[in-house]
Amino acid sequence: MIKVTGYAAKHSFSRLKPLEIERDEAGPQEVEIEVLFCGICHSDVHQVKNEWGNTVYPSMPGHEIVGRVTKAGSAVTRHLVGDLVGVGCMIDSCGTCGPCTNHEENYCEGPNSWLATYNGPMVPKAKAPDGTNIYGRDNTFGGYSNIVVVKEDFVLKIPPSLKPADAAPILCAGVTTYSPLKHFGVKAGDKVGVVGFGGLGDMAAKLAIGLGADVTIFTTTKEKIADAEHLGAKGIWEKDKEAFAALKASFDFILSTVPEKHDINPFIELLKRDSTIAVVGALEPMAPVNNMEVAFHRKSVAGSLIGSIAETQEVLDFCGANGIVPDIEIIPIQDVNHAYRKVEKGDVRFRYVIDMASLKAEIDDQQES
Amino acid sequence: MIKVTGYAAKHSFSRLKPLEIERDEAGPQEVEIEVLFCGICHSDVHQVKNEWGNTVYPSMPGHEIVGRVTKAGSAVTRHLVGDLVGVGCMIDSCGTCGPCTNHEENYCEGPNSWLATYNGPMVPKAKAPDGTNIYGRDNTFGGYSNIVVVKEDFVLKIPPSLKPADAAPILCAGVTTYSPLKHFGVKAGDKVGVVGFGGLGDMAAKLAIGLGADVTIFTTTKEKIADAEHLGAKGIWEKDKEAFAALKASFDFILSTVPEKHDINPFIELLKRDSTIAVVGALEPMAPVNNMEVAFHRKSVAGSLIGSIAETQEVLDFCGANGIVPDIEIIPIQDVNHAYRKVEKGDVRFRYVIDMASLKAEIDDQQES
Repeated sequence: MIKVTGYAAKHSFSRLKPLEIERDEAGPQEVEIEVLFCGICHSDVHQVKNEWGNTVYPSMPGHEIVGRVTKAGSAVTRHLVGDLVGVGCMIDSCGTCGPCTNHEENYCEGPNSWLATYNGPMVPKAKAPDGTNIYGRDNTFGGYSNIVVVKEDFVLKIPPSLKPADAAPILCAGVTTYSPLKHFGVKAGDKVGVVGFGGLGDMAAKLAIGLGADVTIFTTTKEKIADAEHLGAKGIWEKDKEAFAALKASFDFILSTVPEKHDINPFIELLKRDSTIAVVGALEPMAPVNNMEVAFHRKSVAGSLIGSIAETQEVLDFCGANGIVPDIEIIPIQDVNHAYRKVEKGDVRFRYVIDMASLKAEIDDQQES
Repeated sequence: MIKVTGYAAKHSFSRLKPLEIERDEAGPQEVEIEVLFCGICHSDVHQVKNEWGNTVYPSMPGHEIVGRVTKAGSAVTRHLVGDLVGVGCMIDSCGTCGPCTNHEENYCEGPNSWLATYNGPMVPKAKAPDGTNIYGRDNTFGGYSNIVVVKEDFVLKIPPSLKPADAAPILCAGVTTYSPLKHFGVKAGDKVGVVGFGGLGDMAAKLAIGLGADVTIFTTTKEKIADAEHLGAKGIWEKDKEAFAALKASFDFILSTVPEKHDINPFIELLKRDSTIAVVGALEPMAPVNNMEVAFHRKSVAGSLIGSIAETQEVLDFCGANGIVPDIEIIPIQDVNHAYRKVEKGDVRFRYVIDMASLKAEIDDQQES
C-alpha cells in the first residue's frame, strides 16, 4: 500500500481538511502519478455537499488532474516514468458493453457504469443489478492528493505545448464542452451560443471559436461581457430582452453550461429550426419547457455527459495545437474552502487550479515538526 | 361569392351551430371542393374553446377534409373536376422562406407562417412584423362545411384504394405522426413507443408497424390494451411500474401523442442511449424534465409540427399501398357537440369523422320548409 495525503470532507457539512489514505500499489496495467495540479470543478462543490444525494464519505474530490508518472506497471505500454499525464472524470469502465466497445466509456452501460475518479462507481452497489460491484471499490479518492494510481487506458498524454496547470481544466471542463460541440456537428461558420460563463462556459466558447464558430456568450453577470469580448465572442447580458429579441431563431447550436436548475425557454427561442440546445451543466429537473416553441420549429433539447477517453485526448491535442487555454487562477490547497465559497457565488474567472506543491510543502512541514 | 353553410362557434363558451358564410369563388389556381367527410381532431376542441388563447371567432373547425372537386380554376393543372381530394391543416404558406423553398411549408418562416385551414394565419397580423398579413385574411373557415375553396398546391390526391371517410384522419393525425417517424429515422426492426392511444396514437402505431417497427403503445386506459394487441402492438398500462422497469433503455424512438401537458420523464428512461422522444400532441409547457437521465445517456427531447404537403401525399399513398386505415366512427354533423365532449373525455375509438351528407340533408330540409 502507498500512504497518500489529500484534502477531504468527512460529512456534507464539513470543510475539506487534510486526510491520510492508502492506495494500492500500481498493478501491471496501472501507473502511479505524482499530482502536480488539480482543477476545482463546480461539481466538486455539489459532490462534497452531497447535493446530488449520492456522496460517499470521506469525499476527496479532484478530477482535473495533471501530474508526472513516477511508476509504471510491468504491462504498461502507453506511458513512461517521467511523462506528463492527465486524469479526468473516469478511471475505469466495464469495457464490454455497447458504449465501451464503441469507445464511449462515458456512457458505460455496465452494471456500475463507469468508475469515477472520486466518489466510486457511478452506479453504486446498492443500485446495481444483484448488488454487484465490478470495481470492488465503493469509494475512490480524487486528485486533491499527492499521488494517484490509475489504469493506463484512462491516463491521457499532455501535449508539450500546454503548461501543466493550463491543461488541468481541459480534462473535465474542456471535454465536457468539446464532446457535445463535436457530437452535435458544430462546424466553421456556425452560430453557437454558450449559456453561463464560468469554467465550462469559458472553455466552451474558446473551443467553439477554435472550431471556427461565431460565438455568443450569455451571462447573468453584466461585468463579464467585457471578458466575452476579450476572448473573441459576443457577450449578452441575460436580462437584456431587446438583445434576445434581435437574436431570435438565429443559432445553429446552443450549449448550456449553467451548473444548476435554470430556464432554457428563452434560449430555445434563439435556435434556428431543426436545431439543438444541449444542457451539460445541470443534472436536476429543469424548468418546464414550452413545447409549442419546440414543436413549431422541430427543435431538440438534449443532454451530454463529459466525453470519452478518446475525445479527452482529442481536446487536449486540439488545445495544444491551437493555443487554447482556460483562464485559471492558481491557488494553494490550503485555500480550497475559501475557493469553494467563491465558486458557489460564481465569483471566479474562470477556474481555480490547485498547485499541489502547496500540499507537498504542508506534508514536508509536518514530517519535520 | 359562394354561399356556404357550416357549423361554427361564435364564442369560447358557445356550442357549434349552423352558420352561413361566404367564400370567394375559386381563382385561377384554386379548386372548389364539395366536402364529403371531415375528421374531428382534438385540436378542434382546443381551438373552439380558445384553450391556446389565439382563436378567431366565429370558429368553423375542420382540417381533415375529404371531398370531390366541383370546379377547377383556369390555371389548375393537378386536379380535375370529379377527383377525390383531401385538404389537411394548411391551405397556403409564404412560398419564399427557407422551409417553403425546401418543401417544408409546415415550418414556414414567412411573416405570418402558414395559413391554417381554419382560424387564419398561424402568426396573426397583430403578432407579425410591421403588422403585415400576406394572406389578406384574418380568419379562415374549415371543413365542417359543405364547400371549401383551396389553392391547388395544398390539395392532396386520395389514392383509390382508400375509402373517403378513412382517408380523412390521415390528413392530420396521419401526417402528424408519420412526419416525425420518418424525420427521426424510424426503420424496420426499430423498437418504437407510442404514448397516448387516441386518434394520433392509433395512426402512429399503425404507421410505425407499417414501417416495420416493433411497436409498444402506452395508455392510461387499461381497457385499450386489447385494442393495442388487436392492431399488432404491445399495450402497456401507464401505471404498471413493473412493465416500465422491464423496458428501461430499450426504445429507439418514442412519440408522445398526448394532447395536453404531461410528464415524459418515465418515457425518457425507456429510451436507449442517443435516442429521441418527440412530443407532437401537447403545445404547452411540459412537466419538468430530469436532465440527469437526459445527459447520462445523451438523449433528446424534440418536437414536431404536422408535416409538409409532400409528406401528406406520401403518407396517404403509404396508407393506400399498405392497407393502413384509422379506426373511425362516422357521425352526422348534428352530433358534433356531443362528440366534442367524448373527445375531451378520451372516450372515442379512435377518430370521429363527420359524414357531410348529414349537413346536405339539413340544408335541403331548410330550403324545403
